[in-house]
Amino acid sequence: VTPTVGIVGGGQLARMLLPAAARLDLAVTLLADPSDSAVPFCRDVVPGIPDAQGLRRLAERCEVMTVEHELVDLEVLAELQAAGTEVRPSPAALGVAVDKVRQHELLGDAGVPTAPWAVATTSGEIDAFAIDHGWSLVLKRPRGGYDGRGVFVVSDREQAAAVLTEVAGPLLVEPALPIECELAVLVARRPGGELVVYDPAETVQADGMCREVLLPAPIDAALAAEARDVARTAAMTVGSVGVLSVELFVVDGHVVLNELAARPHNGGHPTIEGAVTSQFENHLRAVADLPLGNPAVRAPTAMVNVVGEARDPRERLAVALEIDDVAIHLYGKAYRRGRKLGHVTAVGPDLSQARDRAGRAAALLMRGSAG
Amino acid sequence: VTPTVGIVGGGQLARMLLPAAARLDLAVTLLADPSDSAVPFCRDVVPGIPDAQGLRRLAERCEVMTVEHELVDLEVLAELQAAGTEVRPSPAALGVAVDKVRQHELLGDAGVPTAPWAVATTSGEIDAFAIDHGWSLVLKRPRGGYDGRGVFVVSDREQAAAVLTEVAGPLLVEPALPIECELAVLVARRPGGELVVYDPAETVQADGMCREVLLPAPIDAALAAEARDVARTAAMTVGSVGVLSVELFVVDGHVVLNELAARPHNGGHPTIEGAVTSQFENHLRAVADLPLGNPAVRAPTAMVNVVGEARDPRERLAVALEIDDVAIHLYGKAYRRGRKLGHVTAVGPDLSQARDRAGRAAALLMRGSAG
Repeated sequence: VTPTVGIVGGGQLARMLLPAAARLDLAVTLLADPSDSAVPFCRDVVPGIPDAQGLRRLAERCEVMTVEHELVDLEVLAELQAAGTEVRPSPAALGVAVDKVRQHELLGDAGVPTAPWAVATTSGEIDAFAIDHGWSLVLKRPRGGYDGRGVFVVSDREQAAAVLTEVAGPLLVEPALPIECELAVLVARRPGGELVVYDPAETVQADGMCREVLLPAPIDAALAAEARDVARTAAMTVGSVGVLSVELFVVDGHVVLNELAARPHNGGHPTIEGAVTSQFENHLRAVADLPLGNPAVRAPTAMVNVVGEARDPRERLAVALEIDDVAIHLYGKAYRRGRKLGHVTAVGPDLSQARDRAGRAAALLMRGSAG
Repeated sequence: VTPTVGIVGGGQLARMLLPAAARLDLAVTLLADPSDSAVPFCRDVVPGIPDAQGLRRLAERCEVMTVEHELVDLEVLAELQAAGTEVRPSPAALGVAVDKVRQHELLGDAGVPTAPWAVATTSGEIDAFAIDHGWSLVLKRPRGGYDGRGVFVVSDREQAAAVLTEVAGPLLVEPALPIECELAVLVARRPGGELVVYDPAETVQADGMCREVLLPAPIDAALAAEARDVARTAAMTVGSVGVLSVELFVVDGHVVLNELAARPHNGGHPTIEGAVTSQFENHLRAVADLPLGNPAVRAPTAMVNVVGEARDPRERLAVALEIDDVAIHLYGKAYRRGRKLGHVTAVGPDLSQARDRAGRAAALLMRGSAG
């Protein structure tokens, strides 16, 4: 009755999709490495990588295919789609989501506010942009960047030239903006166009990596409405199916586009406990073309990532579980400094108290003390 | 750091334990039939039945063993425990939980209120009990009964004799009580004795099968406290580890013992969405000897079972998902009339509204209409 869903990837996003699949009784097949985070909780795993062979083998085992990361061969996905496998989001939508330049072109044309931007492959092009907009600049690789990788802040032409030497190919150039905060707005969209927009979440970054998420973002209602409108426009323009995460900067009290991810997203993890319907359940409902669930926030919710620091968080699980009223999520990944290994969510009664509880539990997991 | 947990059984209780295991990063191995409900969501499955061979193979793969049903060879479990596998709950505790006569003896001695009861193997013994307590009587098989099976209400000696003919072995005999309502009180208990007691839930039965659960039970505070005290006493007396479900009748405004289950229980399903910590997470925390989570109820919660009626609930999933703010849980079991195939939970704002929402979604799944 419901389709078998093939998920490309076996990371923590797949791991968190599985309980929602169980509730809805969706059959799931993963294309994953046997050591991946989600594998212990899925019976049907195609071992492999998302190359042509792996994707074809997954396609043979499912009726609908979705992705939990962007490192996928889109040409092969397009072939599989042409051969009859439903690919949701479509290869075309994924093509936009993996390319910051195409996002800026396409969404800018659709009226989504962007910072001034250009594409540069030479020092001269960067200099020309700096003459109009001043230094400092942010140079971004159009593809493959995440958690701060592929993003370079440069304050003069020498630094810019050094980046050009290091990075082959064109760069997206933007002014270094006076960012007030960063938002993530999730949109779940079905093949026929039905969509739901979550409340904006504030994503708090350190060293380019998301450290905390506050849901709803503590911003005024007008700005929240602006962010939701932009996210809805982005999802309709891209034609995404499943969850699209629209990441925005707030500059001078208004949103501008940062980037997109066409999958569940770290900024949406608080929805597991904090929203009527989680991003994971709504991703699957959208991908399986089932009616979408209410995205409303139940109560102010804070999430703190557990990033590898002084110790393996598994060693301190028993201590962290002493903190009352938090949801600890460990991803089963090998400990490495700087690696996201889990997250902690706390719901209510207000953002401040939720943030305190989640932060204390995460600190115990990361450092062994809450100080 | 945390032990590998072997679960005897692959039904819906195991299926609902798995997401909690994933969050806590507990490795899980199931002893299950490949067609069982939980198998699609667990990588490491020992295919088999809980006979000596199956249990021994599971023991080789885990450090702690627990059960999700009672149909287990307790002598083999005791051997495995003696050989070094932690069995939680212990075979001794399971031995009490599977035998209604032993429950009445042991808990009665510990001060848990019971109805008048006797053990009878002959018509004469039943008659003698009826002379003291009058007809009608309830005759119960001490072992193996569930969902109303093994329970017989008889109104005279002929009916009693017919049951004796049908059922081999002794029966637990009780008066047919004027039951005001039925309660389930869950206690999660660690090996060292730390325990938490959930608020009593009301379980609403039809044809001997649980149909609805209301959490907290709509009873006065004194009765709720009495029920919690009885459940705590039961857990301490039995020496259970993991979740013990203490099922009680309310008669003349006070509780009397119905029966025990030494595992997560249908009466605890509302805790997934409605309590700070679900029965499934606390079962695993107890079994893995980790600190227990807060059992407090977040908001009034209603659960309605999805029992096989006119159609396979999977056929009507899309329709039922149109009901706002319900959590639909399907168990992936083949459709059969009268079989529990899933449940629907709704949280808040009050029991009446939650019951209405959950009931409408369950009706759509069972019958295709909410009427």
